[in-house]
Amino acid sequence: MSTFLRNPSASYNRFAGQSAERIGSLSDGVFAFAMTLLVLDLRIPIAGAIHSEAGLRQALGNLEPNLLTYFLSFMTLGMFWVGEHTQLSRIKHAERGFTWIHLAFLLMVTLVPFSTKLLAAFITYRTALVIYWLNLLGLGATLYWSWEYVRKANLLKEGTAEEIFVLARGRIFIAQGLYAIAMLFCFIDNYISIALIVLIQLNFVFAPPLGILRRF
Amino acid sequence: MSTFLRNPSASYNRFAGQSAERIGSLSDGVFAFAMTLLVLDLRIPIAGAIHSEAGLRQALGNLEPNLLTYFLSFMTLGMFWVGEHTQLSRIKHAERGFTWIHLAFLLMVTLVPFSTKLLAAFITYRTALVIYWLNLLGLGATLYWSWEYVRKANLLKEGTAEEIFVLARGRIFIAQGLYAIAMLFCFIDNYISIALIVLIQLNFVFAPPLGILRRF
Amino acid sequence: MSTFLRNPSASYNRFAGQSAERIGSLSDGVFAFAMTLLVLDLRIPIAGAIHSEAGLRQALGNLEPNLLTYFLSFMTLGMFWVGEHTQLSRIKHAERGFTWIHLAFLLMVTLVPFSTKLLAAFITYRTALVIYWLNLLGLGATLYWSWEYVRKANLLKEGTAEEIFVLARGRIFIAQGLYAIAMLFCFIDNYISIALIVLIQLNFVFAPPLGILRRF
Amino acid sequence: MSTFLRNPSASYNRFAGQSAERIGSLSDGVFAFAMTLLVLDLRIPIAGAIHSEAGLRQALGNLEPNLLTYFLSFMTLGMFWVGEHTQLSRIKHAERGFTWIHLAFLLMVTLVPFSTKLLAAFITYRTALVIYWLNLLGLGATLYWSWEYVRKANLLKEGTAEEIFVLARGRIFIAQGLYAIAMLFCFIDNYISIALIVLIQLNFVFAPPLGILRRF
Repeated sequence: MSTFLRNPSASYNRFAGQSAERIGSLSDGVFAFAMTLLVLDLRIPIAGAIHSEAGLRQALGNLEPNLLTYFLSFMTLGMFWVGEHTQLSRIKHAERGFTWIHLAFLLMVTLVPFSTKLLAAFITYRTALVIYWLNLLGLGATLYWSWEYVRKANLLKEGTAEEIFVLARGRIFIAQGLYAIAMLFCFIDNYISIALIVLIQLNFVFAPPLGILRRF
Repeated sequence: MSTFLRNPSASYNRFAGQSAERIGSLSDGVFAFAMTLLVLDLRIPIAGAIHSEAGLRQALGNLEPNLLTYFLSFMTLGMFWVGEHTQLSRIKHAERGFTWIHLAFLLMVTLVPFSTKLLAAFITYRTALVIYWLNLLGLGATLYWSWEYVRKANLLKEGTAEEIFVLARGRIFIAQGLYAIAMLFCFIDNYISIALIVLIQLNFVFAPPLGILRRF
Repeated sequence: MSTFLRNPSASYNRFAGQSAERIGSLSDGVFAFAMTLLVLDLRIPIAGAIHSEAGLRQALGNLEPNLLTYFLSFMTLGMFWVGEHTQLSRIKHAERGFTWIHLAFLLMVTLVPFSTKLLAAFITYRTALVIYWLNLLGLGATLYWSWEYVRKANLLKEGTAEEIFVLARGRIFIAQGLYAIAMLFCFIDNYISIALIVLIQLNFVFAPPLGILRRF
Repeated sequence: MSTFLRNPSASYNRFAGQSAERIGSLSDGVFAFAMTLLVLDLRIPIAGAIHSEAGLRQALGNLEPNLLTYFLSFMTLGMFWVGEHTQLSRIKHAERGFTWIHLAFLLMVTLVPFSTKLLAAFITYRTALVIYWLNLLGLGATLYWSWEYVRKANLLKEGTAEEIFVLARGRIFIAQGLYAIAMLFCFIDNYISIALIVLIQLNFVFAPPLGILRRF
């Protein structure tokens, strides 16, 4: 009791939030849900307004911005899911502070369906693109923060080379740098920015086999 | 057969509900889904009503109460998720009664998207705030109940200090006490109550590093 | 190749669907989602139509049938979740046929949000109640079927008493029998049937501590 | 640092995406969510438009195309879920490339609720059926691709017969061949194609016990 009154948080922290597995399991749920939520924006045409095969094909053609942002966000979520679980599989255990950084990361994940829907509906508006980019930035920043925590709190599993910090942080910096550059093009045209972001994601997905930009 | 007719429930209970892992797994699913559902309340503006960047920014500004309750509820869910999995990682196994207490806890979790949406839509109404607070109270009460069960049924893993009961229950009492005090301010203004609840949550998230209110 | 042409299904079956853990994991996801989906039926009142605290309280009062069916279905899902994971934790491994029976069970689980919503909207209609009951029947029948499979295919873990078959099947028969009796009262009034089903569920949840109907 | 600049991707790949368990866990979440989302298309009739039991039964009868596509898609998702977890339970570990192929597979899974809803709304339109079929094709193609990856990268667990490649690929080819044949009948009538696809799925679910088409 006296310990509790002296500094309950510090004591409680010894017990709280130490399972990396459950952070992984919650994350898988959030990612799975966010990925599937994206598809709800692919609204099917209203039956009453369609009278022919050609009409249906044309109505589906209008879903183009939604399909574009759907694939973009699915790739983004995939990239950050791979990034997060690479980290979680390399740490000994979690800690309370680490857990909350991951919850901040998951907050950013849950915002992706919102910023995606906004971008699909207002694809030519710079405001919508900036909000999408801030979401990407938030994902990168919280993931970077959690790597810093792992390094400072010495949470890495034995036998994992320290090199992983250089590689992981390098990837985040390069990706975020490229996103920022892509964003500058929205002063010319939003579609150029979006196309560049898609290319950046594709590079991170396919770089090794395709060899494009492999130096990055 | 005779055993079954004598007292089937007691016999069945020896078999039923003994996996703490699966309670954790169901909980992760419910929390993940409740967290992501919150974002559906961040409705994007209707495209037809927006004609300029300024118009879009203004329409997004109207989402302010939704954003406020979104962050509030995400933090709340995060706090209770950490609280629950601290418990689940410290018990030897589950029992049928324990499982049902956790299902009652999950019922409270699934109500969070409802009470959050209600508060966002009626942020100046005391009725909405009281319902939100009752939800917080229900989360705390069911979690407290499950700790009591763990203590009485002696479910704690060997090697876990009994001190965890004092710490866990202390945290729940202090949090609920502070919520109740925050609620009293709704007689002056709902926003004061909400701001205080946000501060309480932030304290529970950040207390150790920031050192605010660390004695609690 | 020759084996494949002779009887590919039989050969493939030796490989397919042998992980009880992944059936559990898929089930947890489906149950978590179905439980949380229920809350979407608790629609908040439309802001424009509410002008006072009393008006809000009254509008929330209109949610009564939805709240009733919400608790009913949450308890139902909880009961069947406990029932399913009692089974999954007692078997050595899964098999392809067993996996498909569980998928049929999960199909019934995914229908619960539909039949619940239908009952909430048409709470005085016998058609809606019969559909709800058919859903309960489907849940019980598929769970019973999977126990039969476990018994015939000899999938029980060593050290688990055969008594579990008697107990598990007994519970399903008694529950389904009581549901059927409860249903007959819909010829008098739907609310009597619903109240009886709620009492049956409460008995299965609380029977041991409360001692009501403990012989069943 | 020098390694990083030389070929960061190759280095990072040694660390990234190596957990088959987490691919399974994400997949279970996506499948669970996609399966449950399907039920949202079973819209309940609008209360105000129904005045009698007969009216309710008639309104529910109009859900027939939705029920048909619901069962069809649930079976499809079940089939591919069994197919995927048969693979995941037989591999030693994942790799970054393998992880991305599975993400492409999950992209196809998340599209199922969309193509299902489209088919239910436009069940007599060839365009809708072709999109549904393309979705089936995408599921088969990505699953086939991941088996090829497993074979080339030598990811199979020790003790698993190489025969599994012949069997798994054979099943995919036969299923896709039968789907393609079923599709040809849409030049006569969409319902014939759909009925044939349902029969194909049922064969893959029940073939061993029912013995229909067991040679395939």
